[in-house]
Amino acid sequence: MTAFNRSSLEELLKKRFFYAPSFQAYGGVAGFYDYGPPGCALQSNIIDLWRKHFVLEEEMLEMDGAIITLADVLKTSGHVDKFTDWMVKDVKTGDIFRADHLVENVIETRLDGDKQARLTTENDATSQKDKKKKKGTVQAVKLEDSTKAEYEEILAKIDNYTGTELGEIIRNHNIKSPETGNDLTEPVEFNLMFESSIGPTGHLKGYLRPETAQGQFLNFKKFLEFNNDKMPFASASIGRSFRNEISPRSGLLRVREFTMAEIEHYVDPNNKKHVRFDEVKDVKLSLLPRYIQSEGKTVPVELAIGEAVEKKIVDNETLGYFLARTHLFLTMLGVKPDRLRFRQHMPNEMAHYACDCWDAEIQSSYGWIECVGCADRSAYDLTVHTNRTKEKLIVRESLAEPLVYDKTVLEINKKIFGPKFRQNAKIVEEYLTNLNEEQLEALKKELEDGNGKTMVSCADGNQYEISSDFLTIQKQTITEHVREYIPNVIEPSFGIGRILYSLIEHVYWTREGDEQRAVLSFPPRVAPFKCLLVPLSNNPAFSKLTRDLSSKLRKLHISIKVDDSSNSIGRRYSRNDELGTPFAITIDFQSVNDGTVTLRERDSTKQIREKIDTILQVLNDLVDEDVTWEEVLSKYPTFVQQELD
Amino acid sequence: MTAFNRSSLEELLKKRFFYAPSFQAYGGVAGFYDYGPPGCALQSNIIDLWRKHFVLEEEMLEMDGAIITLADVLKTSGHVDKFTDWMVKDVKTGDIFRADHLVENVIETRLDGDKQARLTTENDATSQKDKKKKKGTVQAVKLEDSTKAEYEEILAKIDNYTGTELGEIIRNHNIKSPETGNDLTEPVEFNLMFESSIGPTGHLKGYLRPETAQGQFLNFKKFLEFNNDKMPFASASIGRSFRNEISPRSGLLRVREFTMAEIEHYVDPNNKKHVRFDEVKDVKLSLLPRYIQSEGKTVPVELAIGEAVEKKIVDNETLGYFLARTHLFLTMLGVKPDRLRFRQHMPNEMAHYACDCWDAEIQSSYGWIECVGCADRSAYDLTVHTNRTKEKLIVRESLAEPLVYDKTVLEINKKIFGPKFRQNAKIVEEYLTNLNEEQLEALKKELEDGNGKTMVSCADGNQYEISSDFLTIQKQTITEHVREYIPNVIEPSFGIGRILYSLIEHVYWTREGDEQRAVLSFPPRVAPFKCLLVPLSNNPAFSKLTRDLSSKLRKLHISIKVDDSSNSIGRRYSRNDELGTPFAITIDFQSVNDGTVTLRERDSTKQIREKIDTILQVLNDLVDEDVTWEEVLSKYPTFVQQELD
Repeated sequence: MTAFNRSSLEELLKKRFFYAPSFQAYGGVAGFYDYGPPGCALQSNIIDLWRKHFVLEEEMLEMDGAIITLADVLKTSGHVDKFTDWMVKDVKTGDIFRADHLVENVIETRLDGDKQARLTTENDATSQKDKKKKKGTVQAVKLEDSTKAEYEEILAKIDNYTGTELGEIIRNHNIKSPETGNDLTEPVEFNLMFESSIGPTGHLKGYLRPETAQGQFLNFKKFLEFNNDKMPFASASIGRSFRNEISPRSGLLRVREFTMAEIEHYVDPNNKKHVRFDEVKDVKLSLLPRYIQSEGKTVPVELAIGEAVEKKIVDNETLGYFLARTHLFLTMLGVKPDRLRFRQHMPNEMAHYACDCWDAEIQSSYGWIECVGCADRSAYDLTVHTNRTKEKLIVRESLAEPLVYDKTVLEINKKIFGPKFRQNAKIVEEYLTNLNEEQLEALKKELEDGNGKTMVSCADGNQYEISSDFLTIQKQTITEHVREYIPNVIEPSFGIGRILYSLIEHVYWTREGDEQRAVLSFPPRVAPFKCLLVPLSNNPAFSKLTRDLSSKLRKLHISIKVDDSSNSIGRRYSRNDELGTPFAITIDFQSVNDGTVTLRERDSTKQIREKIDTILQVLNDLVDEDVTWEEVLSKYPTFVQQELD
Repeated sequence: MTAFNRSSLEELLKKRFFYAPSFQAYGGVAGFYDYGPPGCALQSNIIDLWRKHFVLEEEMLEMDGAIITLADVLKTSGHVDKFTDWMVKDVKTGDIFRADHLVENVIETRLDGDKQARLTTENDATSQKDKKKKKGTVQAVKLEDSTKAEYEEILAKIDNYTGTELGEIIRNHNIKSPETGNDLTEPVEFNLMFESSIGPTGHLKGYLRPETAQGQFLNFKKFLEFNNDKMPFASASIGRSFRNEISPRSGLLRVREFTMAEIEHYVDPNNKKHVRFDEVKDVKLSLLPRYIQSEGKTVPVELAIGEAVEKKIVDNETLGYFLARTHLFLTMLGVKPDRLRFRQHMPNEMAHYACDCWDAEIQSSYGWIECVGCADRSAYDLTVHTNRTKEKLIVRESLAEPLVYDKTVLEINKKIFGPKFRQNAKIVEEYLTNLNEEQLEALKKELEDGNGKTMVSCADGNQYEISSDFLTIQKQTITEHVREYIPNVIEPSFGIGRILYSLIEHVYWTREGDEQRAVLSFPPRVAPFKCLLVPLSNNPAFSKLTRDLSSKLRKLHISIKVDDSSNSIGRRYSRNDELGTPFAITIDFQSVNDGTVTLRERDSTKQIREKIDTILQVLNDLVDEDVTWEEVLSKYPTFVQQELD
């Protein structure tokens, strides 16, 4: 097989209108894409399979929420303050760069230059050859060993610098505006949410949601009620989210508008087991846990998820369950298992509240790209919204056996207490009721030691005398019938566009000996169109048969493309190989005479010839992936007469 | 059947989480809703059926485009200038009202008051009774007959006033701010698009799209190429659109964020026939054409679409085809045919470029509401984008027989012309080349009459002498092999949320004699969940069977809800009647013994009892609507033992 060539693939995707930059006739804007018919169908199929694999399979509670989100909601979630990137400006031209990306590019280029310079010393011939492949900007300049080490450290930490730190790096390492060589400003924070204003007043601020998650959290109480108050359960949402990138790049992998599919699985923090974990425990994953990464290595370990959870490499069963289910989903789509890995976040990568997080990374020509994030977000989200709105996003669980325990409690005789402290009563009472059990025990001892009297320092800075005349501190037996808790959230979050693009790279190849004949080998269930219908020529004898067959295929809900153009059959097959259409039915003169048609399979280009009804049945089974093409070939004779390619 | 009660229905929809206001815990914002699990599934099913009925059935080219749209695009389309409503402000409080809605409400209230006053004169008893039912604001004040007539005219024209006209009506009829009685400002235009800014500079303006159509038009050339340059064809798009309403009301019927499904069908302006029109020509529609409305009547006429097109009531076959297909789609969903009508736009309602437009209106407790618009938009959209961007959104059609015709043409001998006019040559040449055939013939005659000389007035205001020395005007035979034209667009545009809500009203009823027992009779293919699975009790004997059956149903892609709560069976059935779940399988002790289960149908509450495999087969056919419940009952005995409701 020939080496992967990204520009050939991009050419194909453009020619077949998988996707294209939006508003091209108006000059376009980076980070916005329109999906044409094959891209749109591919996306629909991925979403449909996602819904079956996750939502239907586990009776998840799917919702569809508002995209425009009240600013307050995203203030609480932390997005208004923290969903930012650092940007720097060219002091003269005003050109804007994303600071971390700029530093990364410059330092990578310098390290490349250093590598070349070192090679030159060692071996002139190799270095000359190497040089040609590099971009023009790389200069073979050898770095001090200490600088090289420093640069390597910067690259390793590049995702985690503060603005101040990035500013220091830029100054210390003499990083300039790439085109002009001008100085750069200090990094300033840029919020990545698109802002808008709701209603005619102009005073009500909203943002386009950066994720679907917050809409799900806000509906937790309604979900729980809908689920008959049973835990654990999951909500899910599929929809558009937005991210106002400073300078989008990498095609579909970094865009300003994208479709996400997110699951929020709510669990008891004391029990993160999953009832169906046994079904997946033997699924083998390619894992890149922290301990491997911290050794500076990137070779993953192959482990059954059961073992990974048992060894505490993956924090808990529910998280492990979703990693395995994600692996099954992605490989079912056609992602190559050897180009899929699960990388654990390093502690400094994770949000402060997360207790474990794994990214499903898919390898493409852009490197290993995060396509799915699986995080255990603990109780963070439901807690912050509960605190902010006072709507309690909690679970109340009736205890089968009541919880009985002793507790030190305080009782105040208000009849004496009130008149004694008058206007200060509130301050003193607040002080007393805020004491925890330990503090109450200490106070009790002080009172006993002081013959029923002692002094306390209250919030107003004054001291007040407390007396056991109006205060009792004693152990009480508490019986609780209900347990209240804020659930933890395990969140698998899928970037559909990233998966779609990576998948395309994985299934793309060209036929032996002919780089022009490209094929996209989508599995049938994923393929944008399932079957091409080709009448041999424009001969009117074929048109009725084509119409009848189209109608029958539609009744089976098999999506087809009819190609009755005047191109040669071979040309028409090739076009559909590029669309990834797995099957083609050809109608020829024999069809008119004996009611048989040929069925061609895309990857092998082999054909069978049978009566129409047989072909329809076979095709239906193939499209549902109930049989494989190999099985079909073993049952029906291969048809060899036509030599059309 | 009891009378429709909207508040009972709303209570049900809230309780069962069909939908709920977004960000409720944060106080909510009018016009934003979240769809909960049943609403979301209902919406998905409607979209899925739409895609099968339109996109798959006609091989439409579906795309999925950017929501954020470059301001320039919407400037060209006319939305920046014309997608507005008029608003007025209370001069003291600053409260904002949509001017036409305010005028409408006030005048309706005054006409109500007049009606009451007139009734009082005629019949005291009736009027007293009538009065109680009205809102508090209605005052029984009799109007002058002329005022009454004027008010009625205002209401009839309310959708078409300019801001100035609305301002005059407000002044002339003494309309004030409704709560405070304060004066109102003059109407000002408010653009209904949500605005945002793209990228970090703050200089690139974008809007959230108000429709999916523009994204489709901009891709016309790519679609045409994808379609092998064959005409006619259609593109389609399903997705979120936005409209920053001044004051949203009427629940899901007028919201700020909504899902649309739009088709743009491109046709040759000279041939608006539809190849499949014959398949629908006998479909009977309830039509409210212009000629009925202009008589002030609202009783529609029942006509087969074939006849309506023949009589030119509907402009052309393609438009007629989509009206019929829309009727078939809506009634398949469960919309009642007697509450569906197609209303033609009056000439003053239509955009200036449209040549015909019909709304599918569905009747609900809010009146007759436009849920689908079907417009023939002529060549407007493709023309304006072509003119603005110079990217020609046209069709080039090879003519089977070349077009041969005579044409008067002008030839200029540049060698003489240039030196003669020098710096004025360009002005004179421009004048001459802009002349049409008729003008050329006139000029030719002038030259002949003037012995080869005549004067012409050019754009610079000067006169120049023209001579046949350097000018030839003569007939030439032109042969054209290619015809170029801008296609016309027929646009059926579906508001999914409006259809969804109207449908819910149509399928809602309560069981005879018990208003508390509500049912939503969704057809099986539309119903959010297809089957409820109910184990008789928590007895562990049932749980394995429940699990096995769930798994089998999932394999059939039948969406289920398991209800193993401790509620009575009857209670659990009722809950699912409210969700519109058409079928329920109950697992009881007999199931454990003999492998039979009962299957209950929602509307009749009747049951059959058969072996599990039989029930699964029957259920599958019922869900696909391949058999009806009546047919099932005629084949399998009704099971009568249980009396659980």
